[in-house]
Amino acid sequence: MARHFISIADLSVQELKYLVDRGIAFKKAIRAGNYNYADFNKSASLKGQQIPLLFSKRSTRTRISSEGAITYLGGSPMFLGRDDIQLGVNESFYDTTKVVSSMTSAIIARVGPHSEIQELATHSRVPVINALCEKYHPMQAVADMITIKETFGKFEGLKVAWVGDANNVVHDLALACVKLGIDISVATPVQYPVSDEIVNLVAQNANNASMTVTTSPVDAVKNADVIVTDTWISMGQESEKVQKLKEFAGFQVTEALGANAKPGWKFMHCLPRHNEEVDDEVFYGDRSVVFEEAENRLYSAISVIEGFVINKGKII
Amino acid sequence: MARHFISIADLSVQELKYLVDRGIAFKKAIRAGNYNYADFNKSASLKGQQIPLLFSKRSTRTRISSEGAITYLGGSPMFLGRDDIQLGVNESFYDTTKVVSSMTSAIIARVGPHSEIQELATHSRVPVINALCEKYHPMQAVADMITIKETFGKFEGLKVAWVGDANNVVHDLALACVKLGIDISVATPVQYPVSDEIVNLVAQNANNASMTVTTSPVDAVKNADVIVTDTWISMGQESEKVQKLKEFAGFQVTEALGANAKPGWKFMHCLPRHNEEVDDEVFYGDRSVVFEEAENRLYSAISVIEGFVINKGKII
Amino acid sequence: MARHFISIADLSVQELKYLVDRGIAFKKAIRAGNYNYADFNKSASLKGQQIPLLFSKRSTRTRISSEGAITYLGGSPMFLGRDDIQLGVNESFYDTTKVVSSMTSAIIARVGPHSEIQELATHSRVPVINALCEKYHPMQAVADMITIKETFGKFEGLKVAWVGDANNVVHDLALACVKLGIDISVATPVQYPVSDEIVNLVAQNANNASMTVTTSPVDAVKNADVIVTDTWISMGQESEKVQKLKEFAGFQVTEALGANAKPGWKFMHCLPRHNEEVDDEVFYGDRSVVFEEAENRLYSAISVIEGFVINKGKII
Repeated sequence: MARHFISIADLSVQELKYLVDRGIAFKKAIRAGNYNYADFNKSASLKGQQIPLLFSKRSTRTRISSEGAITYLGGSPMFLGRDDIQLGVNESFYDTTKVVSSMTSAIIARVGPHSEIQELATHSRVPVINALCEKYHPMQAVADMITIKETFGKFEGLKVAWVGDANNVVHDLALACVKLGIDISVATPVQYPVSDEIVNLVAQNANNASMTVTTSPVDAVKNADVIVTDTWISMGQESEKVQKLKEFAGFQVTEALGANAKPGWKFMHCLPRHNEEVDDEVFYGDRSVVFEEAENRLYSAISVIEGFVINKGKII
Repeated sequence: MARHFISIADLSVQELKYLVDRGIAFKKAIRAGNYNYADFNKSASLKGQQIPLLFSKRSTRTRISSEGAITYLGGSPMFLGRDDIQLGVNESFYDTTKVVSSMTSAIIARVGPHSEIQELATHSRVPVINALCEKYHPMQAVADMITIKETFGKFEGLKVAWVGDANNVVHDLALACVKLGIDISVATPVQYPVSDEIVNLVAQNANNASMTVTTSPVDAVKNADVIVTDTWISMGQESEKVQKLKEFAGFQVTEALGANAKPGWKFMHCLPRHNEEVDDEVFYGDRSVVFEEAENRLYSAISVIEGFVINKGKII
Repeated sequence: MARHFISIADLSVQELKYLVDRGIAFKKAIRAGNYNYADFNKSASLKGQQIPLLFSKRSTRTRISSEGAITYLGGSPMFLGRDDIQLGVNESFYDTTKVVSSMTSAIIARVGPHSEIQELATHSRVPVINALCEKYHPMQAVADMITIKETFGKFEGLKVAWVGDANNVVHDLALACVKLGIDISVATPVQYPVSDEIVNLVAQNANNASMTVTTSPVDAVKNADVIVTDTWISMGQESEKVQKLKEFAGFQVTEALGANAKPGWKFMHCLPRHNEEVDDEVFYGDRSVVFEEAENRLYSAISVIEGFVINKGKII
């Protein structure tokens, strides 16, 4: 049975720390112009192996970081978009998964419903890596932890504030934070609370840290080291924009809102960014580490694919 | 002049046997986790070379197996779908073929009419490999022979029964069977007989074996070791479904039909599968080797591309 | 700051000569079946690195030559078409460029307006290579100079005649010619003159050679060694065909027109070709070096990508 990576909840504290540190080490080498993975691993690579990216939604960052990671590790990515393959269309989901997993070394999937990634994991004989589903986005959370470690040099004792929607990104971000000893306060509009299931799951994963939920951005950012948000209006939902702007009134991240946080607070965003959720002053200002965070997606993907594919889930 | 691979008829008996055995050897290595092609060939690979896949129709298995094979052999696949390149549109078929073949090491093409693959082969200066046309599907037939060799340990004296449409898949399957000493009985509806051209071609390729054609599935499967079928309703022909179901009444592969075959009969299908042509009991049952057969597409493609591209058609 | 390749004007005479000669050396090796880039460069390659192709327009030759070049140099190309990524849509052009250039080794872009390639170059931290914009097409011009060097063994003292539209191809062709000591005469319909900006830029780049402009194809080809044209009707402009045929009356390249050139004149065309601008007798005749020219796109791309990416713009 292959070990899959569906959510940060699948990792032990030590495994998550290892993936973060390993990502930072890869970054150091690559930034210095050294793309030779053999310097990290003399005995194994993805040479001769192909890894499909099954993407039902498009994504610049996720695609480039995943393909770049596979390339760095010596393998060959194969992008299969919605027009190339539609899971469950023309043949059963089960049949497609059996076949794809019999000719490849792993499946990196960006799907819609969480049930799709679960079904892939159930039937695949190779590792399935969740590159975003409606419930989780674990490689983003690893990249965010890399960014926090780079920025603050530590995890324990920090406070992260999320100001935005209760979406897949904050689910895995919260899991990662509390595993690593970071308190997280999540402000969402009253219409979009964090689900009880996630509240409970985060509590189970807590390790000298906790998550609090609120509907007040001001309360959430109090004493925060980092303010994080994400777009409220997902691809394909542009028609709901007027309604959303009303519901998210007061949720734009600005210097005024940040005045309630710690003086040196930093800003993170998983991109793509729209103006509604953060203004230009913050987004393009000195507090913003968003482009580091985006670049760190590459090192997160390398670290995760090494751990789950080359090392077959034996991460440490 | 490059040697092309358009149909099983292009191979000698010894070449076909070699491609099958070589495929089985690649499977053994890869299943053991060894993706190092240098273990098979120290002096040559596809390193630094690109091979385009010109696909006018989409196909999960053909694409993944071809790209995986090129990757294993050290090369770089380039997928060019209908939206990327349309042969004969915007410039002449001749011009495109000349140009593409001048910058690549081979062309793997999945086309519509047989004339398209012939035209590619006429003008290309590099090997053209037929990854399916309306008349032939040779890499599928190599995979099927790998599957039969694995399952029965031999070819001579076996009987294969085809129950379905008189299509490209059965054309090359029949050629492969009679070359290797396997009798094949082909049952098709009276409306869809095997063409005289194929009947004659198979007779010319026969080697201690023969093809018989019938309109009776029961007659076809008598004494058969393997029953094979394929979907009757190809992509894009879904509108004809009602008519086809009438014409193919009695052609669904079931345990009841198989009761006329040898007790230990096996089931094969090149996928994707629909319920009309085979029921769940057979398709997902112990007789079914369909997922082995699908996986074997990868080893078939490695063997064929090695023979025609790396070894430039000097297969043995 | 990365060094970008936007136009032939970015190169010194010596650099252009080096790229041409290097391309010819790559051709010699590859034509002999040697795809081992290490024979040219023992210490560096694109191994482990990915290079995206951002293509807002499709192109067979540009795509295959660019992907083939990256493959030969050891890297992994990632094709991002219009449906995969749209610059400036869903997030700002700046944001996308920052992110893409942080996870890749270079950006090869085929865009519409020249301003797009400029904006990419402004924001990218890795080299941007222009694979065609509405103003320039420098890798085509390098391929054309390779073709001329192969055909004539020299540059100095030759005369090139362009008979066609005043487009991106002739802009860089003229720059390349006058840099290398080739006189160029450009005939365009009166409605489509070469812009003053380009006339001045070519004059600034002249090195013992000059460009003359005319509206008479007969005048342009007088004493010419090479006649070059290109399609007048670009992709997406087919509706203007009737009007264009009127405006370009007399501009079709034929043996009759060529009778005014040197007796041994050669014909070049960057493809795809339509019948309007050159008849079959010339296009498929012995004078035509169009298929060599197309193949040379591969060696041009290898040479350019080596110079700007592996050698980081330190070409010589």
